[in-house]
Amino acid sequence: MLVSQLLNPTLREVPAEAEVISHQLMVRAGLIRKSASGFYTYLPLGLRVLRKIETIIREEMDAKGGQEVLMPIMQPAELWKESGRWDVYGAELFRLKDRHNREFCLGPTHEEIITDLVRGEIRSYKQLPMLLYQIQNKYRDERRPRFGLMRGREFIMKDLYSFDRDEAGLHESYQKMYDAYCRIYSRCGLTYRPVEADPGAIGGTGGSHEFMVLADSGENSVVYCSGCDYAANTEKSECRPQIIEDASPEGQRKLVPTPGVKTIEDISKFLAVPKSTLVKSLLYQGNEKTFLVLIRGDRTLNEIKVNNALGGFVSLQLASPESVEKILGCEPGSVGPVGVPDGLMVIADEEVPLMKKVVCGANKADHHYVDVVPSQDFRIDQVLDLRMVEPGEACLRCGAPLKEARGIEVGQVFKLGTKYSKALGANFLDENGVEKSCVMGCYGVGVSRTIAASIEQNHDDFGIIWPMPIAPYQCIIVPASTKDTLVVETAAKLYQELKGLGVEVVLDDRDERAGVKFKDADLVGYPIRVTLGSKTLANGQVELRERKSGETHLVKVEDLTQKVKAIVEKALLY
Amino acid sequence: MLVSQLLNPTLREVPAEAEVISHQLMVRAGLIRKSASGFYTYLPLGLRVLRKIETIIREEMDAKGGQEVLMPIMQPAELWKESGRWDVYGAELFRLKDRHNREFCLGPTHEEIITDLVRGEIRSYKQLPMLLYQIQNKYRDERRPRFGLMRGREFIMKDLYSFDRDEAGLHESYQKMYDAYCRIYSRCGLTYRPVEADPGAIGGTGGSHEFMVLADSGENSVVYCSGCDYAANTEKSECRPQIIEDASPEGQRKLVPTPGVKTIEDISKFLAVPKSTLVKSLLYQGNEKTFLVLIRGDRTLNEIKVNNALGGFVSLQLASPESVEKILGCEPGSVGPVGVPDGLMVIADEEVPLMKKVVCGANKADHHYVDVVPSQDFRIDQVLDLRMVEPGEACLRCGAPLKEARGIEVGQVFKLGTKYSKALGANFLDENGVEKSCVMGCYGVGVSRTIAASIEQNHDDFGIIWPMPIAPYQCIIVPASTKDTLVVETAAKLYQELKGLGVEVVLDDRDERAGVKFKDADLVGYPIRVTLGSKTLANGQVELRERKSGETHLVKVEDLTQKVKAIVEKALLY
Repeated sequence: MLVSQLLNPTLREVPAEAEVISHQLMVRAGLIRKSASGFYTYLPLGLRVLRKIETIIREEMDAKGGQEVLMPIMQPAELWKESGRWDVYGAELFRLKDRHNREFCLGPTHEEIITDLVRGEIRSYKQLPMLLYQIQNKYRDERRPRFGLMRGREFIMKDLYSFDRDEAGLHESYQKMYDAYCRIYSRCGLTYRPVEADPGAIGGTGGSHEFMVLADSGENSVVYCSGCDYAANTEKSECRPQIIEDASPEGQRKLVPTPGVKTIEDISKFLAVPKSTLVKSLLYQGNEKTFLVLIRGDRTLNEIKVNNALGGFVSLQLASPESVEKILGCEPGSVGPVGVPDGLMVIADEEVPLMKKVVCGANKADHHYVDVVPSQDFRIDQVLDLRMVEPGEACLRCGAPLKEARGIEVGQVFKLGTKYSKALGANFLDENGVEKSCVMGCYGVGVSRTIAASIEQNHDDFGIIWPMPIAPYQCIIVPASTKDTLVVETAAKLYQELKGLGVEVVLDDRDERAGVKFKDADLVGYPIRVTLGSKTLANGQVELRERKSGETHLVKVEDLTQKVKAIVEKALLY
Repeated sequence: MLVSQLLNPTLREVPAEAEVISHQLMVRAGLIRKSASGFYTYLPLGLRVLRKIETIIREEMDAKGGQEVLMPIMQPAELWKESGRWDVYGAELFRLKDRHNREFCLGPTHEEIITDLVRGEIRSYKQLPMLLYQIQNKYRDERRPRFGLMRGREFIMKDLYSFDRDEAGLHESYQKMYDAYCRIYSRCGLTYRPVEADPGAIGGTGGSHEFMVLADSGENSVVYCSGCDYAANTEKSECRPQIIEDASPEGQRKLVPTPGVKTIEDISKFLAVPKSTLVKSLLYQGNEKTFLVLIRGDRTLNEIKVNNALGGFVSLQLASPESVEKILGCEPGSVGPVGVPDGLMVIADEEVPLMKKVVCGANKADHHYVDVVPSQDFRIDQVLDLRMVEPGEACLRCGAPLKEARGIEVGQVFKLGTKYSKALGANFLDENGVEKSCVMGCYGVGVSRTIAASIEQNHDDFGIIWPMPIAPYQCIIVPASTKDTLVVETAAKLYQELKGLGVEVVLDDRDERAGVKFKDADLVGYPIRVTLGSKTLANGQVELRERKSGETHLVKVEDLTQKVKAIVEKALLY
């Protein structure tokens, strides 16, 4: 492809609305353009990257026995009512009506559609396992679409659904997909980590893993073990309760005045005690119930654990100051567990009952209790793991210290079980003629998101650094002069030869200064740049530069194409 | 692929809801399944056909310099308001609102989005021509979705938009696309005809062609010349007025009683005059105006011509009996042109003023006028070509007789001109620094529709007959016995060898009777069937059968793979 004929509008300025680097670079490098908030057009180079990732995914899905189908984007409300999700799926679901006033939604996921399909076609255990997938647009009406392809409202996903006879079958399908996902991200040239994850709104109780592309800018925190292969989303990571060797209480609990002191930080300073001897008390509400949640003062509460522990309340939130006042007669900063009403359920993190004496709120403005003994001075109804793990803690599996990293979620696999097959009646007859529900799994890759994540992970001050397997083109030829006939003709010749060798190459034939071409080549991020200058070419040499290392070599003209081909082939090996 | 592992649920029964053969066969052959009225899931074999057509289209678009992009499906209402189409596009447009109550639609076409994109990126004539295309879902809320993929509500199209400096450039781009479309349908192995067409709702005044896949079941009528290459949608085809050598009037016009006689047929019989001496008079209304339309009694009125002649009224329709009564004081069957009110515009087909004496309605129940002289006895305000052409008429270009055929529209190309570029301000600076509007064309292929059309054209009583280039697989191997080890092993061996040669092959390894396998193979329509029977194989032979011709040959086992490969390669030549 000739750059002069390519719709690749590069920009020097950072677009005002682009907050993250991948969004900035995708716009600046001319890969995408916004059409409306959360909706983008892929320009030719952006689309090429997308297609390459899709191809890798397709190959890996097929290799595991996946069969590709294509389901409708518009889904009838009836199916969502059958699964029970129509009413619980919130404002993120785009809903619309047809001319006959029938309700539809734009699919954020396709469990209902695929289960409806399969229930019509599956009769016997002999037809299982069945792995069906598609690559297609998905929709999510984000409250605040941003970060370009990272959080759009229309985005592209691969979603595969597995149907098995039993849990053992599901486990096998799950493992196949886990392995396929590892291959996909490796083949894309990305540094990633599969981590244990929370199943979230998709549901299912059998377990879930997220695939994280590691990048300092990642919005997710992950912990991984320095000793074994344990890794988890920090939100999901289980904790081992730590015992603090604190002193025994010096007698009865005492109410002490703490004028104007409210935060854990302030109380710790005011009373000159470590934060690990304080108990944080938080009043939560969800599904019309109220709970008092207790956690050690130096820990961070993990709301997802609270939510799951309480049965997955969609609407879990901190009680309003008005509610706190009504229930406990104080403001939120003074809440404590001592003497709370009998009807109020108290749940505590595992570490709380292990504390010998604690400081806590007294449900009275400007006062705290000290020398409080958990379980003796206050009631605990339920003890659970409710906190965030912290780097340096011991791995639950091997005891080695955990480390932390930032990641961008680009894929997730779920063991669904029979949630959807039971709701929609996707059954089969087993060997004994007994009717059973299919055991399902679902497996998603954020295809468009993977583009953004790969840029977050691979860029520098000058632009994108594409991993070879997903680069829009593998090589760019830059004639540094447009007047020197030898330069122009040799560039055209090398361009044709590389194309003949199957290398994906563009020729920057624009009538621009060499500096402009270099800037664009770095911005777009072609892995290999071949530069033809008048002086070096007079000596029979051209310059070969790899974007990633920045290394530059002078190469004999006659050796160039084979060298380029060798670099490309090596980089595509997996 | 092994048939036992393929999701290819075939049906013996014709699905009740499927009215046309392509819909019946696509469901029966396990290519698609309905998810809701007008919404379908493509099963693996259906998707393979779709992808093959897409690949052919992509190659031909790229060969003409088209650049592939991918635009959003959800489009903001603002752009449609800018182009003026938001308010005129009727109930077929799916509209929805996001959580912030902003209006969107699901794109039935992408003129607004692409023009918005281009206006942001095009500055100079040097960037033109630019040809941008995508292959993507489109949406149309059909009042009555039916015929499977022929008239769905979610369907797949390729749409290319051309941007040129001037009309000459547009003509060149248009010709490129016209040629590419011819190649696409030829490469798909279809019998088709490009015909002159009406631009319809897409608009533009520069001309349009439709590409029709010829099939007796086609919903469109096309005429083509037996002498030259003229062809047109019958609705669009221009007519040459025919002069009838009728007698001169025998005096003044006379009012004659015609009790109970209303239709042209009846009057012709009652008065014993040929229908070609009658004038049909029809009262039309559109955009709050009323017109009396006159046409010779033996002709069919072409409403599209009436509509276009009057400036393209979206709502053109026959006046209601109440309106006729109010305006002319009679019922619709008695309407005639003599003595109509001064304010009522009278438009006549070109043939009417050429008639010497005519019979027509008298605006009085149970009476007609005879010996009426056009233009003398009644007023004609405008003379236009308003009728349907008829087979056998002389071609306007060469005079040879026209013939008629039935076709299914699978593509259309339009010269849009500056309709959208002016509305949205997609301008460029020409060589002299003068700002001009881009001159646009748009070019659509109904990708999913092409599948249906190809089946309408290519099938028999037993199932689909795929043209080789778009067959889901090229060859099926059917071991007639599942017990004969030689048969089973040879089948597996041939399967592997054919795969190795690059032939797309499936092996029907199911534990089914041979008859069932043959029926399925015919139904699905694999172009080549290789059958291994115990007796013939004992003689070192297998049976090679071509689906299209039904011809069967016995072939030596060792020659089989090369023979199959040769048949495939020959059929893919273009």
